[in-house]
Amino acid sequence: MHNIGILGYGTVGSGVAEVAKETGFLHVKYILDIREIPSVSNIVNDINILINDPEIKVICETMGGKEPAFTYTKLALEKGISVCTSNKELVDAHGVELSEIAKAHNCNYLFEASVGGGIPILRSLRQSCSHEKITNVTGILNGTCNYILTRMKSGQEFDDALKEAQANGFAERNPAADIEGHDTARKIAILASLVSGKKISYEKVLCEGITNISGRDFAYSEKLNMSIKLLGVYDSGQNKNYVLTAPFLVSAEHPLYNVNGVFNGIMIYGTMIDNLMFYGRGAGKLPTASAVISDVIECIKESGRNIYNGLNEEILNVSDINQRRDKFFVRVYDSDLEKVLKSFGHVSDEIKLYSDEFAFITENITLEEFNKLSAGLEIKNKLRVL
Amino acid sequence: MHNIGILGYGTVGSGVAEVAKETGFLHVKYILDIREIPSVSNIVNDINILINDPEIKVICETMGGKEPAFTYTKLALEKGISVCTSNKELVDAHGVELSEIAKAHNCNYLFEASVGGGIPILRSLRQSCSHEKITNVTGILNGTCNYILTRMKSGQEFDDALKEAQANGFAERNPAADIEGHDTARKIAILASLVSGKKISYEKVLCEGITNISGRDFAYSEKLNMSIKLLGVYDSGQNKNYVLTAPFLVSAEHPLYNVNGVFNGIMIYGTMIDNLMFYGRGAGKLPTASAVISDVIECIKESGRNIYNGLNEEILNVSDINQRRDKFFVRVYDSDLEKVLKSFGHVSDEIKLYSDEFAFITENITLEEFNKLSAGLEIKNKLRVL
Repeated sequence: MHNIGILGYGTVGSGVAEVAKETGFLHVKYILDIREIPSVSNIVNDINILINDPEIKVICETMGGKEPAFTYTKLALEKGISVCTSNKELVDAHGVELSEIAKAHNCNYLFEASVGGGIPILRSLRQSCSHEKITNVTGILNGTCNYILTRMKSGQEFDDALKEAQANGFAERNPAADIEGHDTARKIAILASLVSGKKISYEKVLCEGITNISGRDFAYSEKLNMSIKLLGVYDSGQNKNYVLTAPFLVSAEHPLYNVNGVFNGIMIYGTMIDNLMFYGRGAGKLPTASAVISDVIECIKESGRNIYNGLNEEILNVSDINQRRDKFFVRVYDSDLEKVLKSFGHVSDEIKLYSDEFAFITENITLEEFNKLSAGLEIKNKLRVL
Repeated sequence: MHNIGILGYGTVGSGVAEVAKETGFLHVKYILDIREIPSVSNIVNDINILINDPEIKVICETMGGKEPAFTYTKLALEKGISVCTSNKELVDAHGVELSEIAKAHNCNYLFEASVGGGIPILRSLRQSCSHEKITNVTGILNGTCNYILTRMKSGQEFDDALKEAQANGFAERNPAADIEGHDTARKIAILASLVSGKKISYEKVLCEGITNISGRDFAYSEKLNMSIKLLGVYDSGQNKNYVLTAPFLVSAEHPLYNVNGVFNGIMIYGTMIDNLMFYGRGAGKLPTASAVISDVIECIKESGRNIYNGLNEEILNVSDINQRRDKFFVRVYDSDLEKVLKSFGHVSDEIKLYSDEFAFITENITLEEFNKLSAGLEIKNKLRVL
């Protein structure tokens, strides 16, 4: 029996306790939470009790947020206690520093559950693809947004889909972090850091959400036999490093097209292995907890030796997003047809579904070029095409 | 620099040499092959040269077939040299025995490349899902069959699709092992062994191929908004353990529907992690070689200590396939309509596309029940529905 501690008894934390019990060889000796939870016997509110108990070799940090998670994690690692976390905000903000501390104390800081919920993407990158040169990562990384977009595809408007997501517990009461793309940006920043071997913080990621997607956008996508997905993208072709979060049109043939509801899908391209995709539950109590436990098991196996977790101090040089080439799907007012033809020249796939507007898809151009060409045009909406 | 040896300089073996070079830290000191290959300097034809060189800690077995691969692998493991293989036939036939030998000599026998080509499925099961109770594995495991079926979906007949696959190097001159389902059966047998923790050899797997799939079957599947995929299935619900390889109708909403061409897709269900799917190149020189190299790297990291590879001696009790419940898609002669209604009762989804026949889908029934009900009927074809 291995004794572990849990920091924070929320959705994921209580899931970790449940999954740990299932394993039969993990015993949750302490659960740290500021609240009094009568149903839980081994609850404590002082971190020192955990880090001063020599029986505790691994702690699961499922509090979320920067503090006190950062302070507690540091205290544990400095005592040589490994920490496994689902806290992407902390990994993004202090992951490198915490990894250094773990290294210095021959223990580990692992964060499988911080990206893709139950999907074993980080371990696969770390252990199966460490010899691959991975030049592209494209992922549906936020279950809340994917649920909303999936419902919109079947006819709902954004506000109703959001309300439904909240009613089903798939979206927070304050959904900003999800629907504005910040959560996806944090996750693609972590993935980009791991595959590039250099640090990228999420402030460097172009961050567009889904709040301006309308039923009309889906009507056009239907017509084009495509769907709309919020994607996190890392793209390091031609000595450029683009990292962005934005809604994309995805064709029905693409493996990410069928990633629906709260599920996540992450596609990577390696120069030898070609395309790989991982699909699974990107959130939820037990899947996320299962990922935390997979880290706990690795920490126990590797007890006393620090393993490379993929994070490095060196900063990734992120390229100017204005120089990235994309095809853009654009909706403009009907009255602007002449302007469009004048500035964009021959417009491929001009689509007419509504009397007051039409849509078209540009050639492969940079955002800078797009902005020049669309000067004077009133753009109703624009989406990148994958 | 780590020195490795390669047994067999075929497609995968030459790929392993190429990927090893790419890593920058692996040096292929010997390549064993019976042929004289002038372009290759370090070719040898005596296994003893490799196993008696103390610099060789890992050998890649990419010969395929049982002998001499089995003998050579045993000799290497007995010397404490780890062996990484893409040889599913050998893993199926002698994997347990070879794993025991590796254990006794503190080295490792790993076989990531034997299932799913470049897809890191075995390592994910071993290292990320070891604490999960996995009750179902459903996979498109043979790129040749999936290529043929994908071409048939777009209108080709079986023979033309097979010829095209052979012309493109996706199918052997003698394609029996692929199109009759034996390759898929071997792979699902290995996957079933790993997730159940008990041995199942592929002779125990119901093995149906794709040779009797016709353009008409695809016409019906199109009508049903489904596709036809050759699946390997391990299903351990309700204290039963079914392991089968057969063509299935797969609906357009299912994540495996979009796994096309030579790609493979493997879906697993774990009681805590729910559904996971892995997608990638199931064959091909570099993707398969990359998987072999991922094992080599693990062997080097774990040098001197044997790691659990998931194979066990205890035999899995496989349930009688006649008791498994499935919905069956059935094509019969037009003249048999009355018989069908009489024996199968109300027929849902009766589909009429051709003057001389019609198709229907049964309720969820056992194969035994199906055979009883269809006595006296001439079945043109029948397919399970996923």
